[in-house]
Amino acid sequence: MAEYQLCCFAQSGHSYKAALMLNLIAADWAPIFVDFFNGATRSQAYRSDVNEMGEAPVLLHQGKKLSQSGLILTYLAERSGRFGGDNDDERDEVLRWILFDNHRFTSYVATSVFQRAIRNAGDPAVHAFLQGRIKSAFGIVEKRLASLPFITGGKPSIADISMCGYLYYPPEHLGFDIVADYPAIAAWLERIKALPNWEHPHKLMPGHPSAAAA
Amino acid sequence: MAEYQLCCFAQSGHSYKAALMLNLIAADWAPIFVDFFNGATRSQAYRSDVNEMGEAPVLLHQGKKLSQSGLILTYLAERSGRFGGDNDDERDEVLRWILFDNHRFTSYVATSVFQRAIRNAGDPAVHAFLQGRIKSAFGIVEKRLASLPFITGGKPSIADISMCGYLYYPPEHLGFDIVADYPAIAAWLERIKALPNWEHPHKLMPGHPSAAAA
Repeated sequence: MAEYQLCCFAQSGHSYKAALMLNLIAADWAPIFVDFFNGATRSQAYRSDVNEMGEAPVLLHQGKKLSQSGLILTYLAERSGRFGGDNDDERDEVLRWILFDNHRFTSYVATSVFQRAIRNAGDPAVHAFLQGRIKSAFGIVEKRLASLPFITGGKPSIADISMCGYLYYPPEHLGFDIVADYPAIAAWLERIKALPNWEHPHKLMPGHPSAAAA
Repeated sequence: MAEYQLCCFAQSGHSYKAALMLNLIAADWAPIFVDFFNGATRSQAYRSDVNEMGEAPVLLHQGKKLSQSGLILTYLAERSGRFGGDNDDERDEVLRWILFDNHRFTSYVATSVFQRAIRNAGDPAVHAFLQGRIKSAFGIVEKRLASLPFITGGKPSIADISMCGYLYYPPEHLGFDIVADYPAIAAWLERIKALPNWEHPHKLMPGHPSAAAA
C-alpha cells in the first residue's frame, strides 16, 4: 500500500492541489476515486466515516484523515521540507495567500465551474455575480504576478499550488479564457507547469470521462 | 503607542475575529478606523501601502503588516500560547476549521451581508444562491456543535473565534435568525460570549453609526 492515499476525482481542482503536491515532492501515493457526480460526498457513510464537511480531497496518512486542501498542503510541506517557506515570515506569507485562495480565488472559480457543470449553466444572475467576484480576485493576482514570478516571491510555494487548482481546466469549464484575459497569470501557470513532476489533473486523478477511452 | 494596531471597522466581521482575539488574550492593542463605506479599502493608497488584497483587517506589529484574519489569528495564538491548540494534531484540526470557515462558512455570510447592505438587498437569485450556500455550511456546523461544546472539541480555539465573526450581528443583517434556525450554533455563541474579555463587535471597533450617539 502506498504511504499516502488521496480521496479525489479528476474534476476536483481542490483535490488536484493535494495530488499535484504529492507528485511534486515525489511522495509514494495513490488516488482513491470519490464518485462525486453520483453523490458519494453527500452520502451518510462518507460524511460519518471520511469527512463531515462532505468534500474531497481527504488525505489518508498513518491513521489520520486530513481534509481541506490548505491543511493537506501545509502538512505535506512540513513533512517534506518543500514549498512551505524557509522561515516564519515566509510561512506567514504562504498561509496568507492560501487563505486568500480559499476565501476569494479558487472558491468562486470552483463554485462557478460546478454551478455550470451540475446545474447546466445555472441562473444568469448568479453566473454574473460569480464572474464579478472572480474578476475582482483575479485582478489582484494578475497585478501581483506581473512583477513576481510566484505569488509569494521568487520561488514556488504551496500557495501557488493551491491557487492553480482549477486553472489547468479548459476555458469552457472556467467560463473565461486565462490566456486572453490574464497574461501574467497564464505565464505563471507555465512556470508551475515547468516544475519537475508536474502533471495535468486528468492524468493524476481518476474519473475523467476521457480516461475510459484512453 | 499600543503594541498591536488593528486596521478595522465595526461592520467587518472579518476584522472582529482579530479584534476579539486581541481582547481575549488581553493584548495591548488599539483600532485604526478603516472608512470602508467611503471607499478606503478600494483606494490606491490602501492597496499599495496597507494591503493589496484591498481588505480589512490588517494587523500592524513590529513593522509587520499582516492581513487575512486566519493568519492574524494563527500569529496571535503562536505568540500568546492561547487558543491555538496544544499539539500538532490539535493545531491541524484548528487550521482545518479556519480553512472551512474562509471557504464556506463566514465567506458566504459576509458576502450576503455586504450584498444586502451595499446593494440594497441585491438580486433575488443571488440572495437565494448565497442563502443556499449558507444553509449547507451551517447544517454541517449545527450537527457538529450538537455534540461538541466548541468546533474542535472541548475547549475554545481560534477556529471558534474565526467562525463567530459575523454571528453577533442582528438577524436583519444576516438574513436569517440563528436562535430560531440553529439552536446548537446559538448555544455555542453563548459559550464564546461567556469567555473573559468577550465584547460585541460594535464595542471593540470604530465606525458603527450608533457610536456617534453613544
